Amino acid sequence: MLSPLFSQYPTFLVFMAVFVATALTMLFMPAWIRFLKSSHIGQQVRDDGPETHLVKQGTPTMGGVIMLIALVATVLINGLPNPETYVLLCAILLTGALGLFDDASKVIHERSLGLTPRGKLIGQFAIATVFAVLAVNWFYVQPTVEIPFIATIDLGILYTVIPVGEGAIYLPWLYIVFVDILLVGMCNAVNLTDGLDGLAAGTVMVVMLVMAAIAFRSNMLEPAIVAAALAGTCIGFLWFNSYPADIFMGDTGSLALGMGLGCLAVLTKTEFVVIIIGGLFVAEAISVIIQVMHFKRTGKRVFLMAPLHHHFEKKGWSETKVVIRFWIISGVCAALGFSLYFAAGVLGVA
Amino acid sequence: MLSPLFSQYPTFLVFMAVFVATALTMLFMPAWIRFLKSSHIGQQVRDDGPETHLVKQGTPTMGGVIMLIALVATVLINGLPNPETYVLLCAILLTGALGLFDDASKVIHERSLGLTPRGKLIGQFAIATVFAVLAVNWFYVQPTVEIPFIATIDLGILYTVIPVGEGAIYLPWLYIVFVDILLVGMCNAVNLTDGLDGLAAGTVMVVMLVMAAIAFRSNMLEPAIVAAALAGTCIGFLWFNSYPADIFMGDTGSLALGMGLGCLAVLTKTEFVVIIIGGLFVAEAISVIIQVMHFKRTGKRVFLMAPLHHHFEKKGWSETKVVIRFWIISGVCAALGFSLYFAAGVLGVA
Repeated sequence: MLSPLFSQYPTFLVFMAVFVATALTMLFMPAWIRFLKSSHIGQQVRDDGPETHLVKQGTPTMGGVIMLIALVATVLINGLPNPETYVLLCAILLTGALGLFDDASKVIHERSLGLTPRGKLIGQFAIATVFAVLAVNWFYVQPTVEIPFIATIDLGILYTVIPVGEGAIYLPWLYIVFVDILLVGMCNAVNLTDGLDGLAAGTVMVVMLVMAAIAFRSNMLEPAIVAAALAGTCIGFLWFNSYPADIFMGDTGSLALGMGLGCLAVLTKTEFVVIIIGGLFVAEAISVIIQVMHFKRTGKRVFLMAPLHHHFEKKGWSETKVVIRFWIISGVCAALGFSLYFAAGVLGVA
Repeated sequence: MLSPLFSQYPTFLVFMAVFVATALTMLFMPAWIRFLKSSHIGQQVRDDGPETHLVKQGTPTMGGVIMLIALVATVLINGLPNPETYVLLCAILLTGALGLFDDASKVIHERSLGLTPRGKLIGQFAIATVFAVLAVNWFYVQPTVEIPFIATIDLGILYTVIPVGEGAIYLPWLYIVFVDILLVGMCNAVNLTDGLDGLAAGTVMVVMLVMAAIAFRSNMLEPAIVAAALAGTCIGFLWFNSYPADIFMGDTGSLALGMGLGCLAVLTKTEFVVIIIGGLFVAEAISVIIQVMHFKRTGKRVFLMAPLHHHFEKKGWSETKVVIRFWIISGVCAALGFSLYFAAGVLGVA
């Protein structure tokens, strides 16, 4: 609806998407919190987190449901989605549904486990694979990884072509595996980051604003609007999720946001740069991997507690300080990644 | 230095200003905090605030000093300032110096009073008046107030022309008085807002990003860079000022930021719109005025405590929640103001 009115002012459309998504999230969330509270649907806090987090027991979760509704509403208010945006939205919503299933089963079984980790991963890989195949075949995304100033790596060398009806499906195996790892990695990295009040929402907000700028510069207005709407819904969510949180986003939110970030990177050909832009999520994920691997090998811990944010809490930073500092770090990572992307684009490299 | 290198990419220059100012602030602040702590220079918390704030006693203040250094350094890294930017910087720095004098005298006399309120106001009015006269005579800022979609009010009807050498100084009285009220009002509004950890820094950051966008759209690149640098220095400051704060910005910071906001509004002819963009600061100031006036007349309080942020604290919101929610409100105000400015510009109205 907005799109035809302001088609001459695309920056304004992106700006409005942030605003509308913020407003819608703030509008719908209170009723959702009331519903969850009256139904006694609360988060089961994992036993192995910091002791101070036990007070979070019982806080409603699945705030991501409203975030995804606000996302879809914002995109529709903007106008009917084009095929790219449609597929992007589907990937985000399906991942959100997977997270919702997990969140809901946790609540029902009153355990902090939900779906088996394997079940979650299989679902994420399936969504990522379908997205990669569609991106390559429908949107003609090149099966390459562009490392600014270094090289463009062609991952389309090993491929299969499957004839289907009049056409054919092109399957560049290496690239599909790469996208799988990127998307599933981002899902779980954002999921791990979602461990302190406001941490995931704030960091994803910053990252999504930069992704919106990148998509916009790549003349991909609609994916830019999706990124902007995701940033906006994070802002609106923070109203309720700021310390002390009234609601958590749950896997519904964090997995969907991670998938959204990965998919946006594929569409904008920033599969490498996104690792810098989302550097904080990557660091959180790597901290867990290092901790587990090092502990298995030597029986000793590298971090006082993993993921990284708990390490700094244990070091004596208060929860709120960790959160705001991580937001800033996330902003610095996003700025570095954007600068790299921008400089490479300007200088015409890779 | 950056300016000639990236002159074709002005958006990137603005973006870099945010980044550089953030980095410089984060770089210099720790040494400043150590110096203040080792010199036992701490904030005297006013007796009439919430009791929970007494723990803030002794936290170093005058963090604004580093913010202003970072601002100047960022502008110089960008390139030599043009006359407009030079005058803008002077107004900000002089106001900062006034605040610093106040902060320092508070520390020396170990009272939470410092300069007499009248002394502060006279200094602010002097700076505002000089800025207004220079803006009108040197930068040919029209002595009008543009209310989008409503009217352009001409405040240049009553004027005096004073011959000076070969030229003349043009003094549109009404406009100068209006600018005085706007600038001094903004100084004190931001000053009042600076009452919770991270509150002023976060809200000013949001507002300055929007002012940067407005200045940029008005083809005023250098003021846009000043606004961006102010936003950046707020981000860097938040690293240390986030709850629980390691340092406060003091009047040095808050008065200077308020003056910067007012001056940017004059240069970009958004003297009316800035009241919406900085709506949160205005609301904080008005809450104090209402509280005082109503109390004097009836002996009763309208708010549980003024300024507004203490009211919500008394209502039971935790300090951190008030801060993040006020950031969001500030963002919504900024978005509304920007939309009004943008829509009026697009439709060619006032």
